[in-house]
This record gives sequence, structure tokens and C-alpha cells, in this order.
Amino acid sequence: MTVVPAAENLPRRLLKGTTMKTLIVHAHPEPRSLNGALTDIAVSTLEAAGHEVRVSDLYAMNWKAVVDAADFGAHATSPLRVIPSSGGAYDAGALTLDVAAEQEKLLWADTVIFQFPMWWYTMPAILKGWVDRVFSFHFAYGVGRHDETHYGERFGEGTLRGRRALLSVTVGGPESHYTDRGINGPIEDLLFPIHHGILYYPGLEVLPPFVLYGTDKITGGAFEDVAKAWQERLLSLETTEPIAFRRQNFGDYEIPSLRLKENLEAPGSKGFSLHVRG
Amino acid sequence: MTVVPAAENLPRRLLKGTTMKTLIVHAHPEPRSLNGALTDIAVSTLEAAGHEVRVSDLYAMNWKAVVDAADFGAHATSPLRVIPSSGGAYDAGALTLDVAAEQEKLLWADTVIFQFPMWWYTMPAILKGWVDRVFSFHFAYGVGRHDETHYGERFGEGTLRGRRALLSVTVGGPESHYTDRGINGPIEDLLFPIHHGILYYPGLEVLPPFVLYGTDKITGGAFEDVAKAWQERLLSLETTEPIAFRRQNFGDYEIPSLRLKENLEAPGSKGFSLHVRG
Repeated sequence: MTVVPAAENLPRRLLKGTTMKTLIVHAHPEPRSLNGALTDIAVSTLEAAGHEVRVSDLYAMNWKAVVDAADFGAHATSPLRVIPSSGGAYDAGALTLDVAAEQEKLLWADTVIFQFPMWWYTMPAILKGWVDRVFSFHFAYGVGRHDETHYGERFGEGTLRGRRALLSVTVGGPESHYTDRGINGPIEDLLFPIHHGILYYPGLEVLPPFVLYGTDKITGGAFEDVAKAWQERLLSLETTEPIAFRRQNFGDYEIPSLRLKENLEAPGSKGFSLHVRG
Repeated sequence: MTVVPAAENLPRRLLKGTTMKTLIVHAHPEPRSLNGALTDIAVSTLEAAGHEVRVSDLYAMNWKAVVDAADFGAHATSPLRVIPSSGGAYDAGALTLDVAAEQEKLLWADTVIFQFPMWWYTMPAILKGWVDRVFSFHFAYGVGRHDETHYGERFGEGTLRGRRALLSVTVGGPESHYTDRGINGPIEDLLFPIHHGILYYPGLEVLPPFVLYGTDKITGGAFEDVAKAWQERLLSLETTEPIAFRRQNFGDYEIPSLRLKENLEAPGSKGFSLHVRG
């Protein structure tokens, strides 16, 4: 199923450019699925272009999805308070090996791709459990100083600053349901809590997502087009402009209320779109 | 910690009303937490008012959070395709006992409360895994006929129609961060994918959420006020107006595009708020 372009067809900048290090976090229970095929394509396409790729296949890893006291060992408070337990274990280098390995991969990578099916308008539980456990206190949040001008290092700063992230999402329903007036809400709003709240928060720049709709109906011929579109996205990761989320500590927000300043958007404007520069 | 009002102080309508059947789906690893206290209060308050209460304490139940082939037994297709496997197992009464028990509780209940901490702007993985597994095909989705005027029974119809749901959510950060211009986006938009996409989809009417902010800083005295506010919400569940989400099959949407009709909101209007009647 995988289609790999011949090396002579690769964009010149990729053949000449520096090596990209990509982590793919993959969350689907069936390797022989559309999601599986998309991850296979990502690996082969990026490797053929000379890049390094690592894959965290959460189902294959039997990833533990649930945060509990066992995550923090001797650093678990009693009663369990997740934030100080998480920070204590992180500071002591005592997080579980599975979590520490994922943090190491994130620090190794310059690009992180998340491959998953949209289930109930967000990511599958196993991937949410990857976020809940890997994004520990003092690693992904609770980083940096808090004072009158700086509310921690997040939303444009943070541990993962300088890296890029991309969601590759398969959606069962048709695209019209996810448009401006579609019943499910616009896809960019459905993904905002992930893009902005999970990825941009610890410093990742977020590329526009690669979303496939109507995936219950993709047949062989249509898949060739999908594969080609996906390869084109993969081979332009380095030159794609990220979503222009506003940075937190650089004048756009009142501190500590973190409300967008009144001069930046019309009074009465509200909602997710305010946090993208116009 | 639990404060139960004396029976003579209960609202008359509750003393005289019919018995309410409430399922609480609880998702926090520590019973001695704010979330634990809120569920304890819900149980004691509702039971003192003569209602029936059942609790699904997901951590205590060691809830399996991850969808996989084992959920569907002999009905798992190979390669695994989640939707037909889920539907096949549901139709045959062959879903796993843990999932079947939760579906039975949902059908028993007239009110469902979800008690959880907001982690990374949405529910913890264990609760998402409850949704992913319990909301099976032919139970929560893939219900009803599809034709030119009716796009399945969902968004106002469906298996759970006639029941009500309420999110009770604890949020670490301050409220201003979750307001119209707050950096995280408005709380109603962050909760929309849950309210509309998970709860309203299979037919539940959704009550305005009970949200506590700044929960890292709640001390003993402040907790008394919280407990009182929560009790007031619990004792008015029957008379609280649900969020006025638009029904799918009753003229507001084009079918099958499921775009909101142009005459219903100004051209150019977009986003989640369109799907609530003005």
C-alpha cells in the first residue's frame, strides 16, 4: 500500500537540507488500517528523504493510559495529589521508564506527528493517556517564572520550544459536517484544545492539520490520492507555516488575567479564533 | 466534609416529586480529593432527597480505558474495524460485561453526572476510555434511519433521549483564563465537544456545567461555599433548563450536508455557538 517517491523526485531543499528528526505518536489498534498505512507512508517517505524517524506505536507498546499513584513511585503524595507528585518524580528523575522514554523522544525530535482516528470529536483514550502521563509537571507545565510580566513558560515558550507538531487525523464523517456552519463545529475549533491547549502550551509550533474525511468510504483508487497528498505534506513540513497562535508573555495578554488586550480585537470578540494572529 | 441539608430544608418540589435516578461517572484517582468530596456530596444530597444514586467510580473499578479487539470477542473483525466489530458485538449481546453494565446503568438513569478534573483542557483518559468503549455502535451511534430528511437518530434523538447529563468539572487555573477573551478559550467552547459531540449526540439533554476554578487554592472555608453551591445545583437538576442545542432532523440543518440553514443565522456566522438556539 505504501508509495515511496523515487529519490530524484524529492524536493531539492530536502535533498540538500539538514536531517529532520521526526517522532510519530501512533494511536490505532489495527496496523492494517488507514491509520496504519498513513504511519507506514510517513516512515518510508521521511526515511527516503534522509530523515530520522522514531515511532511510538501506543497499542503495540501496550501503553498504560491511566494516571495513577504508580506513576510517581515514592514521590506519590498521600492522599495522591497529581501535580506535586508528578513534579517531584520528574525532578528526581524517578518517573516510570515508559514515561521517561517518551520525554526523551520528544526532546530528541524536532518534529512530532500524531496519527490517530477522531473518536467522539477528539483523540482516542490511549493517546489522551499518553498526554496525561508524558506531559508531567515541570516538563510540560509548571515551567518558568511567574511574576507581573511572565506567567510561566507556556504558549510560545516552554520545554518543547523550537519543535513542530502536526496532527494527522482520520474522520469518519463527511467534511461538510465539520465546516463553518457544520453541525459538529469547524474542525479548527474541535482541534483547538489539542493544538493550543496540549501542543502549543509546552512550546510546540503547530502546523495546520492533515485531516481525511469520510474515511469509512475510502477505496483503493481514492487511497492513492490520499497517499500522494500525505506525502506532499510530509515533504513540506519544514517550509509549512505554523498556525500563528499568539504568544502569552509578549504583550498580547493582560497578566495575570490572561485576557486578550482590548486593543487587539474588536470589543465583544470572543472565542478560540482570538488567539490566532489575524 | 460532606454537608447534608436537613430534610425540612429541601425544596418542596423535591420532597413531593418523583424519584430521580442518577448515575455518577466519577474519574479521579484519589477518593480523598476535591473530586471525591464532590461525588460524596452528590450521593448524600441526592439520597437525602429521596433519589436513587449509582456511582461508576472508574479508578476504583480499574476501568479498562483502551478500545481493542478483546472488547468485541468473536465479533472482532480481522483486520480489526472498530465500528462493525462494536455493532456486531452489541447486536449479539456479546459486549464485555463491564461495558454492558455501564450501558445498563445509562438506560436505568434519568440523570447522568460526570465528575472529573480538567486535564489538558478535556477529560482524563480513563473517562475518555469509558466513552470510547461504552458508547458502542448501534447503542450511542449508528442508530436510526438515514434518508433525505433524517440523518440517523442523534443530536436530539437517540438511545439516551429523555435523560439529562451534567458535567461537574474542577479546573486548576483561574476563571478569567476561561472567559470570552481568556487565553484558554471560553469554557463553553472547550466543553462543546463533550456537551454536544458526546452527550447530546446519543440524545442526552445537557445542563449547564458546574465548574470550579482555581481548585489548587481551595481551602477549608472556601470549600463550605463550594459544597453549598454544589448542593443547590444538585437539588435543582429537575428544573434547570438544558442548553438549547439545535436538533438535527427538525428543519434547522440541510441534509445530508448538516450545515445550518442560511436563514437561521447571519451569513458568515460560524462556530460552535450556531448550534445553540439564540
